[in-house]
Amino acid sequence: MEWICVAAPASIGNAGPGYDALGVAVTGPGDRVWARRVPQSGIFIKEILGFSHGIPMEPGSNSVGIAARGVLDALGVKEGLELRISKGIPPASGLGSSAASACAGAFAANAVFEYPLPREKLLPFCTESERATSGDAYADNVAASLLGGLVLIQGTDPVEAISLGALEGVYFVVATPRFTLTTRESRGVVPKDIPIKAAVANMSAVASVVAGLLTKDVKLFGRGIQDHLVEPFRSPLIPGFHEIKAAALDAGALGCAISGSGPSIFAVTGSDDVARVVGERMRAGFMEHGLESEIRLAVMDVQGTKIVSPE
Amino acid sequence: MEWICVAAPASIGNAGPGYDALGVAVTGPGDRVWARRVPQSGIFIKEILGFSHGIPMEPGSNSVGIAARGVLDALGVKEGLELRISKGIPPASGLGSSAASACAGAFAANAVFEYPLPREKLLPFCTESERATSGDAYADNVAASLLGGLVLIQGTDPVEAISLGALEGVYFVVATPRFTLTTRESRGVVPKDIPIKAAVANMSAVASVVAGLLTKDVKLFGRGIQDHLVEPFRSPLIPGFHEIKAAALDAGALGCAISGSGPSIFAVTGSDDVARVVGERMRAGFMEHGLESEIRLAVMDVQGTKIVSPE
Repeated sequence: MEWICVAAPASIGNAGPGYDALGVAVTGPGDRVWARRVPQSGIFIKEILGFSHGIPMEPGSNSVGIAARGVLDALGVKEGLELRISKGIPPASGLGSSAASACAGAFAANAVFEYPLPREKLLPFCTESERATSGDAYADNVAASLLGGLVLIQGTDPVEAISLGALEGVYFVVATPRFTLTTRESRGVVPKDIPIKAAVANMSAVASVVAGLLTKDVKLFGRGIQDHLVEPFRSPLIPGFHEIKAAALDAGALGCAISGSGPSIFAVTGSDDVARVVGERMRAGFMEHGLESEIRLAVMDVQGTKIVSPE
Repeated sequence: MEWICVAAPASIGNAGPGYDALGVAVTGPGDRVWARRVPQSGIFIKEILGFSHGIPMEPGSNSVGIAARGVLDALGVKEGLELRISKGIPPASGLGSSAASACAGAFAANAVFEYPLPREKLLPFCTESERATSGDAYADNVAASLLGGLVLIQGTDPVEAISLGALEGVYFVVATPRFTLTTRESRGVVPKDIPIKAAVANMSAVASVVAGLLTKDVKLFGRGIQDHLVEPFRSPLIPGFHEIKAAALDAGALGCAISGSGPSIFAVTGSDDVARVVGERMRAGFMEHGLESEIRLAVMDVQGTKIVSPE
């Protein structure tokens, strides 16, 4: 059987204010999965390239394998899958690394068996993969990575999400420092109760993000990129967060927040040029705290998970 | 000098999930203010018609008078205003009665002096009127009543709001029981800290309301009309709330929540016919708890506060 190749984009969980409610897919390196049908039942991971450190080869513990397994079980097929994985997204960086793997795995399994399931029906297999590897069925990253654009999580049991599409003219700058923060660690610091004032500020910001996107108002979108709900608790886990955010805003960013559960920090701008300057300021900001960082310049990914020509 | 007549619509604070963040203007009886310039400095309220019970005639304590005074002071005019007020919105009902009065007062003062201020600059005078009469500078009702449509509060210091426009095909059913609940009472029961899960649910609902409005998706809009943030604390103040809400949803309402700080309850539907049935069920629901109620069938008000021909 022939190999197919599936690419899933990186994503920014929460998209600023929308803790567990919004996510956004971004261009740039994502995860890739090559898959082919094999006669033996089972899932066989043959290799993991790229950011493979710490990623289990055992299919029952691997995000790609778990999501693909779920799809195969749902399809009731007797045959199996051979997989090769290329991790373009560093794990535990706040860019939806496990989510992209899950989406690529579910999509690939469905694609190999000629798409018996529509795209949106793949979502539960992706969230179950997140549950198995991160502790809960988080949907913001998987929905963004699977569907593309800005996604709205409508429910978690069962998981329901819609994509509101993408907005041209918004530039994302993501600074990823060279240390990891697991979703478990980062969620552990978020308390069960939060000030109602923070909720009000975030609801207003969520409305700005959604309205900005749908009315193609880049400034309104950017104004909504702020978080009062979890940033107070998570920012202490990221050295220099407040200085870096201030530097990004000072350099012209419209908004700045932690990407997903961190430690990546992202900013949005209305121009490519400003994005470059903001990126340099963010890099310098981490450096002042003794941390190297990777700067990703991106726009919204429109397509989500998709078939690409094998390279 | 000639009289002018200004009408300001009723409004639904929070618009379901958006506590202090969203508001929506609705058609039906609003407040009216007749105003004319007089040579003497000062504001003179000549009469208050309609739901006048408990509304102070003294301009310094009256929502219309306070807002008009603010505008006159800002304009630096030496002359005064004579006002006649018709209260079409029952006070303390959860329909933005004081807000509509404030908007009509500010708009009338500006209109009488030939519109030196653009509409959006009137907002602070309206919120200051709310502060004087309700204890804080709440903006959700005044922004909706002034601007029309669904409004998003972007900030409170200084107050900033935008209207996202209106959505055709959404019908509002508002049931107003014959007892009053002041904003002060109703805000007193809302705690300072709330569960983060409630915030997440409301952020998702706010996103649905905004996205539904802007993509003209009535079902998505209606799905967002739900509140997890303040309803748990305020609903005990409204006899039969949970049964009435259940009856409204059972009769086909897309969503149902407390209107502003209550005691009105509102539901939204996708058809006029369903709205009528929902209204009857809500009326019956209040009746089972020994309360008469007024049922208002409305759509979104598009224009906000405006000049009308004196009747």
